[in-house]
Amino acid sequence: MEKGRVTIPSESNFLAETKRLMALWGADAIRDSDGTKLDEELKQIGAKIYTTYFVARGHNDFAEKHLEEVQQAFLLSERVTATETTPKIWFMKGYLAEQLQPNYRENPKDLWEVYDRTTGEKIASENWEVDQEQNFVSLKKWQPYHEYTVSFLASMIWDPTQMYNHITNDWGEKPHEIPFDIRQPESNAFVKNFLINWLADNPDTDVVRFTTFFYHFTLFFNDQKKEKFVDWFGYGSTVSLRALKEFEKEYGYKLHAEDFIDEGYYNSPFRVPSQAFLDYIDFVQRFVANEAKKLVEIVHDANREAMMFLGDNWIGTEPYGPHFKEIGLDAVVGSVGNGTTLRMISEIPHVKYTEGRFLPYFFPDVFYEGNDPTIEAKENWLTARRAILRKPVDRIGYGGYLSLANKFPEFVDYVSSVTAEFRDLYARIADVTPYVGIKVGILNAWGKLRSWQTHMVAHALWYQQIYSYLGVLESLSGQKIAVEFLNFTDIKTGIPADIDVLINVGDAGTAFSGGKNWQDATLIATLTKWVANGGGLIGIGEPTAYFANGRFFQLAHILGVDKELGFSLSTDKYFKDEVSEHFIIDKATQIDFGERQKNIYALSEKTQILRYFDGSVQLATHDFSNGRGVYFSGMPYSPENAQIFLRAIYYAAHKEAELNIWYAENPDVEVHAYPEKRQYAVVNNTDEKQVSKIYTDKRNYVITLAPGAIEWRNYDE
Amino acid sequence: MEKGRVTIPSESNFLAETKRLMALWGADAIRDSDGTKLDEELKQIGAKIYTTYFVARGHNDFAEKHLEEVQQAFLLSERVTATETTPKIWFMKGYLAEQLQPNYRENPKDLWEVYDRTTGEKIASENWEVDQEQNFVSLKKWQPYHEYTVSFLASMIWDPTQMYNHITNDWGEKPHEIPFDIRQPESNAFVKNFLINWLADNPDTDVVRFTTFFYHFTLFFNDQKKEKFVDWFGYGSTVSLRALKEFEKEYGYKLHAEDFIDEGYYNSPFRVPSQAFLDYIDFVQRFVANEAKKLVEIVHDANREAMMFLGDNWIGTEPYGPHFKEIGLDAVVGSVGNGTTLRMISEIPHVKYTEGRFLPYFFPDVFYEGNDPTIEAKENWLTARRAILRKPVDRIGYGGYLSLANKFPEFVDYVSSVTAEFRDLYARIADVTPYVGIKVGILNAWGKLRSWQTHMVAHALWYQQIYSYLGVLESLSGQKIAVEFLNFTDIKTGIPADIDVLINVGDAGTAFSGGKNWQDATLIATLTKWVANGGGLIGIGEPTAYFANGRFFQLAHILGVDKELGFSLSTDKYFKDEVSEHFIIDKATQIDFGERQKNIYALSEKTQILRYFDGSVQLATHDFSNGRGVYFSGMPYSPENAQIFLRAIYYAAHKEAELNIWYAENPDVEVHAYPEKRQYAVVNNTDEKQVSKIYTDKRNYVITLAPGAIEWRNYDE
Repeated sequence: MEKGRVTIPSESNFLAETKRLMALWGADAIRDSDGTKLDEELKQIGAKIYTTYFVARGHNDFAEKHLEEVQQAFLLSERVTATETTPKIWFMKGYLAEQLQPNYRENPKDLWEVYDRTTGEKIASENWEVDQEQNFVSLKKWQPYHEYTVSFLASMIWDPTQMYNHITNDWGEKPHEIPFDIRQPESNAFVKNFLINWLADNPDTDVVRFTTFFYHFTLFFNDQKKEKFVDWFGYGSTVSLRALKEFEKEYGYKLHAEDFIDEGYYNSPFRVPSQAFLDYIDFVQRFVANEAKKLVEIVHDANREAMMFLGDNWIGTEPYGPHFKEIGLDAVVGSVGNGTTLRMISEIPHVKYTEGRFLPYFFPDVFYEGNDPTIEAKENWLTARRAILRKPVDRIGYGGYLSLANKFPEFVDYVSSVTAEFRDLYARIADVTPYVGIKVGILNAWGKLRSWQTHMVAHALWYQQIYSYLGVLESLSGQKIAVEFLNFTDIKTGIPADIDVLINVGDAGTAFSGGKNWQDATLIATLTKWVANGGGLIGIGEPTAYFANGRFFQLAHILGVDKELGFSLSTDKYFKDEVSEHFIIDKATQIDFGERQKNIYALSEKTQILRYFDGSVQLATHDFSNGRGVYFSGMPYSPENAQIFLRAIYYAAHKEAELNIWYAENPDVEVHAYPEKRQYAVVNNTDEKQVSKIYTDKRNYVITLAPGAIEWRNYDE
Repeated sequence: MEKGRVTIPSESNFLAETKRLMALWGADAIRDSDGTKLDEELKQIGAKIYTTYFVARGHNDFAEKHLEEVQQAFLLSERVTATETTPKIWFMKGYLAEQLQPNYRENPKDLWEVYDRTTGEKIASENWEVDQEQNFVSLKKWQPYHEYTVSFLASMIWDPTQMYNHITNDWGEKPHEIPFDIRQPESNAFVKNFLINWLADNPDTDVVRFTTFFYHFTLFFNDQKKEKFVDWFGYGSTVSLRALKEFEKEYGYKLHAEDFIDEGYYNSPFRVPSQAFLDYIDFVQRFVANEAKKLVEIVHDANREAMMFLGDNWIGTEPYGPHFKEIGLDAVVGSVGNGTTLRMISEIPHVKYTEGRFLPYFFPDVFYEGNDPTIEAKENWLTARRAILRKPVDRIGYGGYLSLANKFPEFVDYVSSVTAEFRDLYARIADVTPYVGIKVGILNAWGKLRSWQTHMVAHALWYQQIYSYLGVLESLSGQKIAVEFLNFTDIKTGIPADIDVLINVGDAGTAFSGGKNWQDATLIATLTKWVANGGGLIGIGEPTAYFANGRFFQLAHILGVDKELGFSLSTDKYFKDEVSEHFIIDKATQIDFGERQKNIYALSEKTQILRYFDGSVQLATHDFSNGRGVYFSGMPYSPENAQIFLRAIYYAAHKEAELNIWYAENPDVEVHAYPEKRQYAVVNNTDEKQVSKIYTDKRNYVITLAPGAIEWRNYDE
């Protein structure tokens, strides 16, 4: 196929070149982008037309008339230490007044909360007063030298994404887009009517690209116009008095500011979620699904497609949640930064197609004279391609200024090869299941809901505290492994029969390690039995960590290691010697454990230590009855680590003998087989020549691959 | 003074050389050592004679006849994972049968405990049975895939110190000394009678050197004859049915095996002590003091002196405890490894004199051909001397084989200079108080009871988990700082008026950081008020750590930093820049933070960051109202660190202007002033030449000091 499955941006006055690039890249769809519009003529050249559509912002004519329906959030003041004199808490301190304003429409006494953060106690509302002129709360009763905070309801008067773009690009006097809450009656009616009219006014739009629906992920700026708080999963901006009342009616109990404030953590995904927060997520998701569905139906009634951008105002749509399917979307499009984000998009169920927007974005930060945008493009493509080979997105695309990309002929050429290669491999594998050697379950407090989304703070941003764990999903995203995401409730009565290996990864106390879930003896016994009967458990970082009953790692008896917290220093630790031979690695293998751990010690001589340094076990395995435990102190992504991790999975599953089926010895090379087609691909994931021994299901041979090459072969070739 | 204050060992057939060395070193006392005896003639040369005396071991004739009175301990079995078939727990597995035997004299059902360590629940005694032939417990009721342990009462049939020497020196058939329990009636009578007779039989003994009294610190070996568990403070070997019954009678509640087993941590000093354990410590201390007093009185009745060795069977005598003074000892002798252990000995109250045994011990591990024992001697002396200059021991001494030391003439010469120097400085400062600039309080769960004994596992042994904290006491041991040890109860109603700076140092959850003590809002408010009113707080490692109410460091508001545990990653951390100038250090200063910390972040721009690396604040200061907080991520000992720490203390106390009084700019040099004598010492703590600017109380000048030199000057010189 020479054409199709590719979306490109375009812009005004760029007709001829757009046609040329469309032909060159085989694009069949054109989209607008932030800051670009498509000419009428462009819309008539036979491409599918995507048009970006904002539901709950970008309509200030309406919003300014209905400021009582603006979006809202509970915010926490700074902590103020009381002294002997009346404490005053200037609760807006540190917030950007252009984004957030105290909501005095509702009575603060009904919704706001003042906490003694030294004791954790709520202060009765008769014991504090709000000064609405000056925005402070004064306390009438307090304990000197305790810390106090005010949790207040704020109106969000600037859409976070527009605010970000506005501030970053210095848009000056350009009006601030006010986000309104479609849970409120006027807004609810408005968005539907507007969409109906808009569809009529935009007959050339084939695909309404919702960017996105109703509620932005939590993003607050500070008074210096810098990011103050960001949580890509945050439900912070979904609240309102109406929402709280409807919640109470449905769930039979009342939510308070503190359910959102959460001691200042605002229900970060790293917190083990409370039942109240889980209920609220479900409540919002059901509402969002129901309302989004209505918009989608309007789109469908106008014979257009409805596509959702995975980001920005996506809160409540979570595609792996139980209510997403009700929305009835045709497609989801998202930004592809690596293999993990590719799979996050490509695995989305209940849509007709998914689309990945590839990097680089056609913006001047990359497309400037003297820079080679091909480098980023290659890295992006080669990183994502191994995930595509497991589960492809249905389309790929680009964004930004096409005219800018057009100035870089080498880049234009490279994209031609990418789009051709994508179409070729899509044609080969879209409808077939790749060979899978093992099925793993990722066990954390979120499970399926946050599939391919663990350890994420802000979309695809690097944090020192997470990179050592991101290698797990990034490795798996392109390997011959099936991946299921499980929460603790899912496995309490037993691990699904098809799971070979469970993986628990993260820092102690977090939702990803599991925190207080590991108090549960039933969970521990269920997992212990499962491993004893042959299951494999891989723990990374501080897995199964909960300090109780003489252990920190509650499954230390399976992993063969625990962490010394200082309480068992009196007990001699004998076992520090590395084994000389092991299936997972040999003596010479270099492994990067990232931030790694200290104070991990082996429980007995039965623990096989593979790496020991800095006074700590970094990698170990441990037989437990018929099953196995494997411990890594960290697993940042690299091709070498991915291969080690794959070997560890096979080892944990007692399937060492099967590793050398569809396997490449060189970690920069991978093999993907498609049994139904009796074809396989040998892939060079790098931009350099690679040589590797390749194992098929029957034999092995050595292959030399050109930079970035993908070679398709038949089983019997 | 040319003679005195020095104790040396001697041995058989070494009379003439002993006399020569006594004269050379000015020794006035001779002692025996492990494995050496003094000839009759030696005892007549005019020296004071110390004789090592074992109270509760070394009397196998008695002990073998009264095995029902042998010392005992509660031991924990390995954790055994139950399956579907009857679990059996071989509780002796891993213990050395030559040291420990299950005690079947008492009914196991009355004293032993079986725990489900998965749930933390005790199993009713009707649900398990002991097989006394084969030493296992079988369970009659259990939950499959839970872990179970047996806590059993064991008889300790080999004294740990003799066992250590026996195994280390391969003593073969030499009988194992059986420790007996003087809480039992026969033993109690025996030790008194034996001492009375012994004193009559040893008329030349002037000083009975008790090594030591009744109960050894906890020390168990494993079945490979290697150390399995060691706690220099452990009360593990003090238990018996009689002790438990007497405790119950006195305190009105019953102790159980688990009160000693403590989930397998055996009440490590790093555990925040339970009230039951504190009660038990008090109970044992009162008993030991009372019984030891009787022996001391017997010694005094025979007109001899009673000296106690600080170690081995010292449990219950803790010299900083409330009951020590009742013993009525004349002296305590202990091993000096550094400044901290020197102060641990020299500060002991309620004795007529203290004696420090210096290193190296005259054993072949150091005194062998080709090695220079002077190197260790110099390091030991120079390290301890700075502490002696603050608070001297009253005597110094050596141990081991004198004949061995005699073969190293350079060493013999060096000891001459040490003993002469010791006598000189003792004469100068013994009765005067040195200049003190600031008073600090070390705040932990142990307080005064464990003065100069924080973060210690086995006496003076290095552990990776503690060295980063030991620099605090080691620095203070030789500085112009007064030191008080405070526990959390001591300060709940207010910090003593003379304290300028409080120091809290250690890992989260430990007794030294404080753990759950930091749940207490009263404690937090008291400290907050105290700092607000001008106090200084220095936190090191994970100070004031208890995860609650939105904080990990409960005094983060004072320290200006907290630790990121993963829950506040969504909140932007802006503050990473180091200040360009600061009183404590300048830009070029090299600091070793030891194991340091990760993920420490500054709360606001008010925190002055002095060192930031590895994504973490390592050193910071923070003004809090009229007081100050200082944070160090670690403080291992070095002369450079000690000086930085001293500067930090002055800074925290707002006394920067007073630092340059009796101060040396070169960290290898220190100044000790004695106002009553209007004299001061300038000391070179190294074995190399040093140059330093010196500050007196009025002026400054530059001095050059020979290696190891100590120069005495008058104030007005």
